[in-house]
Amino acid sequence: MVIQTVGTGAGFLLFGILIIAFLGIIQRYELAHLSIEKLNKIKRVLGHFVPLTAKNVIEKDPEKKGLLDKYIQDATILFLDIEGFTLLTQKYPQERINRVIESYFSIFFDLIQKRGGDINETAGDGMMVIFQDPDPALHAKNATQTALEIQAECVKVSQNGDSDLFPIRTNIGIHSGEVYLGSTKMRGSEGERWTYTASGPVTVLAARLADYASEGQILIGEETAERVEKLFSLNPIGKVPLKNINDSGEVYEISSNH
Amino acid sequence: MVIQTVGTGAGFLLFGILIIAFLGIIQRYELAHLSIEKLNKIKRVLGHFVPLTAKNVIEKDPEKKGLLDKYIQDATILFLDIEGFTLLTQKYPQERINRVIESYFSIFFDLIQKRGGDINETAGDGMMVIFQDPDPALHAKNATQTALEIQAECVKVSQNGDSDLFPIRTNIGIHSGEVYLGSTKMRGSEGERWTYTASGPVTVLAARLADYASEGQILIGEETAERVEKLFSLNPIGKVPLKNINDSGEVYEISSNH
Repeated sequence: MVIQTVGTGAGFLLFGILIIAFLGIIQRYELAHLSIEKLNKIKRVLGHFVPLTAKNVIEKDPEKKGLLDKYIQDATILFLDIEGFTLLTQKYPQERINRVIESYFSIFFDLIQKRGGDINETAGDGMMVIFQDPDPALHAKNATQTALEIQAECVKVSQNGDSDLFPIRTNIGIHSGEVYLGSTKMRGSEGERWTYTASGPVTVLAARLADYASEGQILIGEETAERVEKLFSLNPIGKVPLKNINDSGEVYEISSNH
Repeated sequence: MVIQTVGTGAGFLLFGILIIAFLGIIQRYELAHLSIEKLNKIKRVLGHFVPLTAKNVIEKDPEKKGLLDKYIQDATILFLDIEGFTLLTQKYPQERINRVIESYFSIFFDLIQKRGGDINETAGDGMMVIFQDPDPALHAKNATQTALEIQAECVKVSQNGDSDLFPIRTNIGIHSGEVYLGSTKMRGSEGERWTYTASGPVTVLAARLADYASEGQILIGEETAERVEKLFSLNPIGKVPLKNINDSGEVYEISSNH
């Protein structure tokens, strides 16, 4: 009887301990679950700031050695600037300018994403976009097609008098070839700051062509032109003078209007 | 006896169920723990792409209504460009250029962070930095001080013949005042792309001053000059012609050399 009571007592004690441990674990699991939920939300919003290509690589394996280190790759680079943006900022209130830019950029972003482009930088009135694909002809085509679609969209909005969006024109420069692609990594004593980009002469030429373009032109470099000449009607404009560039190569204009 | 056996049997059964549930929960907790670890790693790397000010806001409350929406705020904007970068990209191999840029930018990043500045954009050879503080005189001072430190560091490296870093000069433009600060949000059908920036005429003037600066100059706008004139020796250079800007205001040069 005594032994049995002790046995039952020990049983209850063990049972009690188990219940407490169980509840403790459940509570920790719930906390962990909450953490996961919050972390996922933070991850999602931080992810808005990261170009898609880079984000996919990071989410796959954030501890990969040499993560996003730069390497030479064939790509097509597109630069886009809104014409006369500085004048617009002096003419309209900031809030309206911002709403208009966000609306246009959202439209462009959609067109860019659908053709596999990745916005890696924006700068007030402009953006840089990287098009990649194992097929060098395909990313050149995708970039050119996107530029034409952006141009057509701007024309469409300008013809719609009801729109809250005032008309804009985008000057675009495109060039293809080998770029040095990956993250520029700044390492400070209190943390790191990375940006994802494509560097080198191909990028510089694309940027300069966008600077040189006016009145909503799309200018493409020789290498891109060679890859897409059978697909679009190209208008050769010869060599053009570009700041700090000795030889622009043959430059072509392309337009959705013909 | 039968009742007792049944009781003991039920006890064992309950005990068994509890143990299994317990182990199940522990396993799920461990999985949750692993997820948390991986999520934290992903969050950390994604965070490298996000300006510190924006990152802090997101990590505090990723679900906040109007998260990082733009609002008018007083700030000092600094633009920095490496002089003759296009020429450098034609002279040296990409890999070396990249190593040099990363080294310099890491030095600058450190100096910028120590004075509370936030690199919000980079573009190959340049960067945009936002200085904020409740005290309008303090962020103007911090930006100016940072520019002088960056200039001094470039001079120091150029005098060190042993360095793997070839000498560079940075052209810097600084301006203070009300900017429209927050995230530009591009919303596409397949996701969102945000960038953190300060928009408006103050930013445009700072950018144009950096463009106008040459040979490693630091040029500051009138509003910044008024806020820091008692702290630094300013060299007035009058009004300067800037693209698409009617009136540059009085522009001042500042130098660490005197």
